[in-house]
Amino acid sequence: MTEKCSPDSVARSVREYEGVTRKRDIGELIECLRIQDQPNVVASFGEDAAVIRQDGNALLLAADGIWSKLMEADPFWAGYCAVLVNVHDIAAMGGTPLAMVDVLSFTSSTIRSEVTRGMQTASAQFGVPIVGGHLHPDTPYSVIDVAILGTVRVDDVIYSSGARPGDRVIAAIDLDGRVHPSCILNWDSVTMKSAEEVREQIGVMQELARRHLVTAGKDISNPGVIGTLGMLLEVSKRGAVIELDAIPRPDLRTNNITFEHWVRMYPGMGFILTCRDEHTDEVCRLFREAGMNAAAIGWIDDTDTLSVSYEGVTTSVFDLKQEGIMRILDNARLV
Amino acid sequence: MTEKCSPDSVARSVREYEGVTRKRDIGELIECLRIQDQPNVVASFGEDAAVIRQDGNALLLAADGIWSKLMEADPFWAGYCAVLVNVHDIAAMGGTPLAMVDVLSFTSSTIRSEVTRGMQTASAQFGVPIVGGHLHPDTPYSVIDVAILGTVRVDDVIYSSGARPGDRVIAAIDLDGRVHPSCILNWDSVTMKSAEEVREQIGVMQELARRHLVTAGKDISNPGVIGTLGMLLEVSKRGAVIELDAIPRPDLRTNNITFEHWVRMYPGMGFILTCRDEHTDEVCRLFREAGMNAAAIGWIDDTDTLSVSYEGVTTSVFDLKQEGIMRILDNARLV
Repeated sequence: MTEKCSPDSVARSVREYEGVTRKRDIGELIECLRIQDQPNVVASFGEDAAVIRQDGNALLLAADGIWSKLMEADPFWAGYCAVLVNVHDIAAMGGTPLAMVDVLSFTSSTIRSEVTRGMQTASAQFGVPIVGGHLHPDTPYSVIDVAILGTVRVDDVIYSSGARPGDRVIAAIDLDGRVHPSCILNWDSVTMKSAEEVREQIGVMQELARRHLVTAGKDISNPGVIGTLGMLLEVSKRGAVIELDAIPRPDLRTNNITFEHWVRMYPGMGFILTCRDEHTDEVCRLFREAGMNAAAIGWIDDTDTLSVSYEGVTTSVFDLKQEGIMRILDNARLV
Repeated sequence: MTEKCSPDSVARSVREYEGVTRKRDIGELIECLRIQDQPNVVASFGEDAAVIRQDGNALLLAADGIWSKLMEADPFWAGYCAVLVNVHDIAAMGGTPLAMVDVLSFTSSTIRSEVTRGMQTASAQFGVPIVGGHLHPDTPYSVIDVAILGTVRVDDVIYSSGARPGDRVIAAIDLDGRVHPSCILNWDSVTMKSAEEVREQIGVMQELARRHLVTAGKDISNPGVIGTLGMLLEVSKRGAVIELDAIPRPDLRTNNITFEHWVRMYPGMGFILTCRDEHTDEVCRLFREAGMNAAAIGWIDDTDTLSVSYEGVTTSVFDLKQEGIMRILDNARLV
C-alpha cells in the first residue's frame, strides 16, 4: 500500500457506513414475510438471488432498487445501475440472466426518458432483455425497481452461505475504470466497456459455478468489499481475517480518493469469493483473463468475527454473532 | 339491469377514467427499452406476464406496483394487493405462481409493518412465498413493488393476443365481496375467503390453459372490466361489441355504487376471456363451480372498435386503431 492506513479507521468507516447500516432491518422483514411449506425454495433471503428448484435446474429470482439519491443525481446512471445490480445478483450465484421486469415511477418525462435510456443501454450491453413491468406516470417521486430471472444447474449454484474454515477469501474487481462523476461512491468500470468485455466478466462466475471452483460468492454491492464479505460471513456463520494490503485497488492518488473511501465503493464489476486453498490460483487466473484484478486477501476461520489486518495490527470490523449486518436469524440456505 | 344506464355515459366514464388513461405511456416506454435478438422471449409487454421459453416450459415473469394513493390510504391493503395483482398476472396466463420478490421503500416503521403484514397474509393465503428482494429504509416516500415468477407448459399459455373474430367474450368475477372500506375503486372478494377458495379460483385459469378452452385472457385490473377488455383487444388487434346488461355485477343498491362505478372497479378476482362459441358453457361452468359469476357478455369482431350496447343503443368506447390504450405499436406476442 503506498498510502499509510489505520485498520481502526478502516474498520470504523466500514462499520458506520450507511451502505452497511441500512441493511439492519432485513432480518426483521424476513421474519415478517416467512410462510410455511415451500419445498421447492432452496434458498431465499440472504442470498443475492433466491433459488427455486425446477427439475434439475435452479431458477434464480432477485430484485433490486436504486437509492433515490442516485435517481435525483443522475437518472441515466440510476437506470443503468438498476440493470447492472440485477445482472450482478444472478452472476453472483453462477447463473445466466434470462430476463428482467421493471416498475418505474417518475415525476417528469425527462427523468423517465433518461432512466429508460440508462436501462436500455445496460440491457443491450449485457444482452438481458427487459420484458415487462409496470409504469406509474403520476407519482410525486421517481423510483426504479427491477427484478431479474436467471437459471443455473441446481448442483452448480454458488451460495453466500458456503464458506468454510480454511477457505481462502478472494476479491475480484475490475480496476480499469473511474470514480463516477455523478456519484463518488460508484466505481464505474462498465459504461466504457464493450458488450464482449462485460459479458466475459459475467462469464467467469458461470465458469466458476460449472467447475465448482468456489465455496461461496457474492457480488460487491453498496456495503463495499469489506461490508459485502461481512454479509457473506453472516449467512455462512463463519469469521475471517483479511489483509488490507492485499485488497485490489486502483491508483488512489490519481483518482483522488482515500483507501477508506475505496473500500466503501460499489464497483461496476466486483465479486467476493471463498475457495479451497488449492483453487486460489485458478480462480484468480480466470478473472485476470477477463481483465479483472483478483487477489487472495485472507482466510475464513471458525470465529464469528470479521477482522482486518495491516502491518501486524489486527482490528475487528464486525462481531457477527453480537450485531450482524442483515440480522438474519436462520440460515438463508434452506436445504 | 335493475337501474337505468346510458351506454354513452358508461363509455365516457371508462374512457376518461384515470385507471385507463394512465396506461398511455406504455407504448412509448416499450419502444425505448427494446433490444435485439431474444429468441427465447416468446411474449413480453402487453401481456400480463412475459413468456420465456425454457425447454418445454414457459417461465412467466411479471412485476406490478401499487398506486401511492392506496399506500397512503391503507398500507395493509396495499401490501395485500401488491401480492394479489402479481398472482393475478400469472393466473391470467394460465400459469402456476412459484415465488415473488419485493422492493419496499417506507417512511415509517408503522407503514413498513402494515405493508409486510398485508403481503404476508396474501402470500400465505395464495401459497406463493416471497423469497427475496430489496429494502430502502431511508426514502422520503413509501412504495411497494413486487415481481413474480410462474410457470406453465409453453403450449398451454393463455395470451392477451389470441382473440379471433367470432369468439365469445366472457367476464368472470367473484361477486361475493364488498366495496373495500379504504378504497372505493376496489371490490374486495378475497380477504374474507379461505386459502382453499382463492386457490380454487386461480386453479380455474390453470385448467382453462391445460384444456385449451380459451383463445385469450386477462385479469381485470385497474382499468376495470371494459378497460381491460380494451387492452386485450388492442394486443389482439380485434374489436368487440359487449352487452352492458350481461356484465356480472353485485347488488349495486346494497353496495351503494352506480353501474358506471362498478365497471371501473378492480375486482379481487376477475378475468376477461375469449373462447370459441362451443366452449362458452364449459368455461362459465368451471368458474361457477369455484364460486365466481361468469357470463358471456359479447362477441369479438374484425373491427378496431370496442363498443358497448344497451337496450338496442350501441356506443363506441375505444377506437383502438386511432387512439389505443397502451399504444403498443407491435404485437406483444413475438413468436
